[in-house]
Amino acid sequence: MAKEKNKNLSNRVGIVETKYYTFAGPGNELRLESGDILGPITLAYETYGRLNRDRSNAVLVCHALSGDAHAAGVHEGQDNPGWWDEMIGPGKAFDTDRYFIIASNVIAGCKGSTGPSSINPATGRSYAMDFPFITISDMVNAQKHLVDHLGIKRILCVAGGSMGGMQVLQWVASYPEMVRSAMPIATTKKHSPQQIAFNETARQAIMSDPAWRDGDYYEIGQPERGLAVARMIGHITFMSDQSMEEKFSRRLKKGRLNFNFDPEFEVEGYLHYRGSNFVKRFDANSYLYLTKALDYFDLSGDRLIPQGKKIDTRFLVISFKSDWLYPPSQSQEIIRLLKRRNMDATYCELKSTYGHDAFLVEIEEQTTLIKHFLDKTQNGYMVADYYDIS
Amino acid sequence: MAKEKNKNLSNRVGIVETKYYTFAGPGNELRLESGDILGPITLAYETYGRLNRDRSNAVLVCHALSGDAHAAGVHEGQDNPGWWDEMIGPGKAFDTDRYFIIASNVIAGCKGSTGPSSINPATGRSYAMDFPFITISDMVNAQKHLVDHLGIKRILCVAGGSMGGMQVLQWVASYPEMVRSAMPIATTKKHSPQQIAFNETARQAIMSDPAWRDGDYYEIGQPERGLAVARMIGHITFMSDQSMEEKFSRRLKKGRLNFNFDPEFEVEGYLHYRGSNFVKRFDANSYLYLTKALDYFDLSGDRLIPQGKKIDTRFLVISFKSDWLYPPSQSQEIIRLLKRRNMDATYCELKSTYGHDAFLVEIEEQTTLIKHFLDKTQNGYMVADYYDIS
Repeated sequence: MAKEKNKNLSNRVGIVETKYYTFAGPGNELRLESGDILGPITLAYETYGRLNRDRSNAVLVCHALSGDAHAAGVHEGQDNPGWWDEMIGPGKAFDTDRYFIIASNVIAGCKGSTGPSSINPATGRSYAMDFPFITISDMVNAQKHLVDHLGIKRILCVAGGSMGGMQVLQWVASYPEMVRSAMPIATTKKHSPQQIAFNETARQAIMSDPAWRDGDYYEIGQPERGLAVARMIGHITFMSDQSMEEKFSRRLKKGRLNFNFDPEFEVEGYLHYRGSNFVKRFDANSYLYLTKALDYFDLSGDRLIPQGKKIDTRFLVISFKSDWLYPPSQSQEIIRLLKRRNMDATYCELKSTYGHDAFLVEIEEQTTLIKHFLDKTQNGYMVADYYDIS
Repeated sequence: MAKEKNKNLSNRVGIVETKYYTFAGPGNELRLESGDILGPITLAYETYGRLNRDRSNAVLVCHALSGDAHAAGVHEGQDNPGWWDEMIGPGKAFDTDRYFIIASNVIAGCKGSTGPSSINPATGRSYAMDFPFITISDMVNAQKHLVDHLGIKRILCVAGGSMGGMQVLQWVASYPEMVRSAMPIATTKKHSPQQIAFNETARQAIMSDPAWRDGDYYEIGQPERGLAVARMIGHITFMSDQSMEEKFSRRLKKGRLNFNFDPEFEVEGYLHYRGSNFVKRFDANSYLYLTKALDYFDLSGDRLIPQGKKIDTRFLVISFKSDWLYPPSQSQEIIRLLKRRNMDATYCELKSTYGHDAFLVEIEEQTTLIKHFLDKTQNGYMVADYYDIS
């Protein structure tokens, strides 16, 4: 997703380090939703701020499809801020002076957590297509091991956008007693056929590349062209029609038509840049497995909040007007379900023009909402809804 | 595009035959917008109904990206009706008892008109990437040769959807005195960056397939996997979110999850079917050239109706509410421009849920509008707008 680099280095969490937690052996292995067993499992994670004495100030931040454990700060000797750096830090939305923020790379990912590019202990080679199928529920079960390991019994807030928002909802479905509040942003409670269609087309772009070699490419280099096309599809869906118009319109890279098949329009150059950059940092097989996890996601019916079950998790549901990948209507479905279950739930549709990317770039309004919500959650009294769609 | 087969064989134009018109030699060759010269040029075309004595009842129907000259009826020994068969025939929207309908395959196409798969007389082999770049204006200039050949001085109506609608607008821009009325449907006066982005991603899917071989594949078979992915991208954009939900929802092909990378959801199966069917009937290089023609299309500013120029073409502009590929807002831009130029122009936004496909499947309401419009055009008196967006 488009992420404007935070040029302002002040007010940051500073130098951070990725840590690793491995759980293994019977009882610590994961029984997956597919029935398969996965283990040992390593989770890459980072934390920002300090856990308080009664371990009540933990906030778990869940990343989207191409995200990772590096949510804030910078790594020693590098200058890439984390993917939500503008939201996490002293005085920011997720205020590290008050909260202990945890971010971990999902299983099936490729940024330090166990995924298809990891070594399969049974063979001594990368799992590749021997990696088992993963669901959002499996990702959350793995995170639960990490949260237990950190000694946290109840999380103040689980927050995230897009695939991160699905993990938020799954946390409530799987471990409601551990989730004091939940903040699903720009997400859905079930993947729609259109969302599945985009993902399947992206997968076909990867799997049609002969360099994919049925996933067995780790020694010779990955299917770069297929993965780049997959990512181009993604980037179209991350932006709105309007934001593309504002950013590119029909401007030409060289000011005139070339009449050839090189990128002529600026928007083409942008997609090429995004595609070729992505293949340097992301594993094609992870893209396949993670998009499948998205497609499997379905917490409709009774699966999010079972009827009659007493759950006291508070919700802040955020959507963006111009997001057509996870449109406001899908967030409204979440909020309607929560209201039917008499949950303490607030909905806010922000008037951004940035499309789905908005959850990464609309900082100011999200900050106001999130600060307020976390404050009220921590201090334990109820607030009225800001916006009510009923 | 999704086209429901017309099972009802009655009321059809019956058996039709594709004809070919070739124009060649100096003066008959085409000087293209790119500056290149193309010739000899063959146009495949079909006609339905009879041209009246004063040659005043001709209707030119222009096809979309994957269409062809076979717009209505069936070919001897085959049972595939033309792509707009439900709209063309005795008593239908384009009533063959009253009008003489002409449909021709565009240049750069692959259904009988000169395109990249045609033999280049200079080499004796297919043009492939030696084919010159074509614009919508070039397509229309070629059609003009055909219309002249048929002895028609003024066309009663030029009509078409999507890329066909762009040809309609281009006819007015290029030969306003020849166009008595124009009916651009589900189209735009300029391709937007989002539309360019989808096309460029489709082209990259094709050109990333090693079987594409820089377009030089005619002796060994075309880049089927890349072209199938390109077409899958297209089909997502042809349907609306809602029509996908209604048609597929999250239904599984085998009633349960397989946990593998074969198509599991019905929507995936649909896309695979559409993709693999398409490669049997369409040339990958044509797809590249035609999508470029779409992207080059820009009749903004003074290019459609020059300021101060007296043009008496009547317009019926049709859009579909759920079409997000060529959304109503783009048709509204057309109608606003026409109104600013004091043109006789009517706009109608139909409340279909079928997305862009609607222009092929919403027969009933389009029929009412079109019949009425053609009748009034032929009988030469003005009508009030049905819907006015001003």
